[in-house]
Amino acid sequence: MTLVRITALAGGIGGARFLRGLKAELAARGTPAEITVIGNTADDITLFGLRVCPDLDTVMYTLGGGIHEEQGWGRADETFTVKDELTAYGLEPQWFRLGDRDFATHIVRTQMLDAGYPLSQVTEALCARWQPGVRLIPMSDDPVESHVVIDDAQGRRAIHFQEWWVRMHASTPALSIVPIGADDAKPAPGVLEAIAEADVLLFPPSNPVVSIGTILAVPGIRDAVSTTGAPVVGVSPIIGGAPVRGMADACLTAIGVETSAGAVAQLYSGLIDGWLVDVADAGTEIDGVEVRALPLYMVDGPSTRVIAAAALDLAADLRPAGQSRASRQ
Amino acid sequence: MTLVRITALAGGIGGARFLRGLKAELAARGTPAEITVIGNTADDITLFGLRVCPDLDTVMYTLGGGIHEEQGWGRADETFTVKDELTAYGLEPQWFRLGDRDFATHIVRTQMLDAGYPLSQVTEALCARWQPGVRLIPMSDDPVESHVVIDDAQGRRAIHFQEWWVRMHASTPALSIVPIGADDAKPAPGVLEAIAEADVLLFPPSNPVVSIGTILAVPGIRDAVSTTGAPVVGVSPIIGGAPVRGMADACLTAIGVETSAGAVAQLYSGLIDGWLVDVADAGTEIDGVEVRALPLYMVDGPSTRVIAAAALDLAADLRPAGQSRASRQ
Repeated sequence: MTLVRITALAGGIGGARFLRGLKAELAARGTPAEITVIGNTADDITLFGLRVCPDLDTVMYTLGGGIHEEQGWGRADETFTVKDELTAYGLEPQWFRLGDRDFATHIVRTQMLDAGYPLSQVTEALCARWQPGVRLIPMSDDPVESHVVIDDAQGRRAIHFQEWWVRMHASTPALSIVPIGADDAKPAPGVLEAIAEADVLLFPPSNPVVSIGTILAVPGIRDAVSTTGAPVVGVSPIIGGAPVRGMADACLTAIGVETSAGAVAQLYSGLIDGWLVDVADAGTEIDGVEVRALPLYMVDGPSTRVIAAAALDLAADLRPAGQSRASRQ
Repeated sequence: MTLVRITALAGGIGGARFLRGLKAELAARGTPAEITVIGNTADDITLFGLRVCPDLDTVMYTLGGGIHEEQGWGRADETFTVKDELTAYGLEPQWFRLGDRDFATHIVRTQMLDAGYPLSQVTEALCARWQPGVRLIPMSDDPVESHVVIDDAQGRRAIHFQEWWVRMHASTPALSIVPIGADDAKPAPGVLEAIAEADVLLFPPSNPVVSIGTILAVPGIRDAVSTTGAPVVGVSPIIGGAPVRGMADACLTAIGVETSAGAVAQLYSGLIDGWLVDVADAGTEIDGVEVRALPLYMVDGPSTRVIAAAALDLAADLRPAGQSRASRQ
């Protein structure tokens, strides 16, 4: 059996869980596969002098066996001694809760970045410990940070995405969401190749605006996806008009897109060939995109494996379509 | 009763414990006192991108009620999650064991230093939490770091004092100990005034080479001590030819000084008026210095208070001597 090269663009929790299901499904099938994950870094933030990359870490911890299962992010068996002490000193911000185990990851990352290593090499070094079983590459070695424009009692202003997401729980409407730095960012080494040379390209059920959307905002990546010969299959992060988890609806509203499985597929127009929607959204039709409906709630390992299997099967059925879409360009 | 202004030069554990005894004795006497501690910063080190000031923190934690009592340094109820995780990533150095609670102090300090605050203001901010009951000033806002020249199987080289002290336990002889940066360092704001305006100046039983010695190596401080009108009383850190704790003997040997209560007093020649030695060293005589012998092991609170009381009493008896020593200059 030949090696199947699978490349996925991924945000945090949803992407990481889907990828774990994908690994399990490939292992069960006995398919020799090489998975490359292009991770979103636009929700990265510098806190307490430390560079925090939430999505990369969520993928790394989830696939490497270190994740806090119920929470979906952060480390298992986590403690918060450092954070509590920082609070005792009154150090801001206090709304971003970093655990002790997690702190170490950020210290190592910051030490390496300060020593001059690009984020992609830092991520590789961190993964040397976690062995996630995939090649995890940040979308870019250049810093990109999503900022959100809001207008509340304190007036109109731009704040870091994390402040809006974690501190405000996206309760204040976003007037716009801008991935600062994306325009000038270059894809990290290996990103374009992993897209161009993939046999299958996947969009896991990640946030279409601040995860997949920001990855695609790095110049060169959208083009690479739209011209790849591989079939591109996405999994809807929206079920029955609501995000599976998180507050993707607030992000979609900010960019004027309806919160529906069909609208997200439209957002990916020209990029995807296949689209998996939940049974609640059966009947969704998108021009030039093969839509299949199945239960999309990743409630446990087996249910997630079924979704990954459906994505692989759809890609296999679409292979000629993928080629024809590429020839459309 | 008028306010007594007491200024002490201090290193880490020995100095901090003596100062705690001093505070207790003054409280018991009902003496209104203002204590200024000039802390050694020459054993400071940057680890994991964080600025660590071991002696300042030992004084702050000890007087502020946060110290690990048995150990003498670091925080009580400490955990080592971050350190263990850093080790799991293979991050060096692994020989300096920072606790989780302690990490927070270094994060706050580094954040403030990076924001442009001088160490003296950072120390004041940290003390706002700990309320040590003394004014703690670093000897200098300029970085000073003791380095040790050794010659072992790896050849002759200079290493940071902490590597020699903590990693090697001073087992390799020091050919020399140099407080790098001391020549160009300026005393921190308030240091010279606290010496000049003191009613009593104390040298607690701190390391005469790498603690008191490095404080005195900052240009201006030695002169201020030798010309102050206040009586200067020291407590010997050496009892019966051996350090009370730590490896001060290795430091004294490096500078060619015998490990004895008398030799240390000679090292302080021209600076001290009074010298407390242990009963084991009764009979020690130093020209122009009043020597008194009493048990100097600080085994608990009460025994430490007795030593502090003896220092205060000796200073009171010496007040005219102090003035005459100043007039000697």
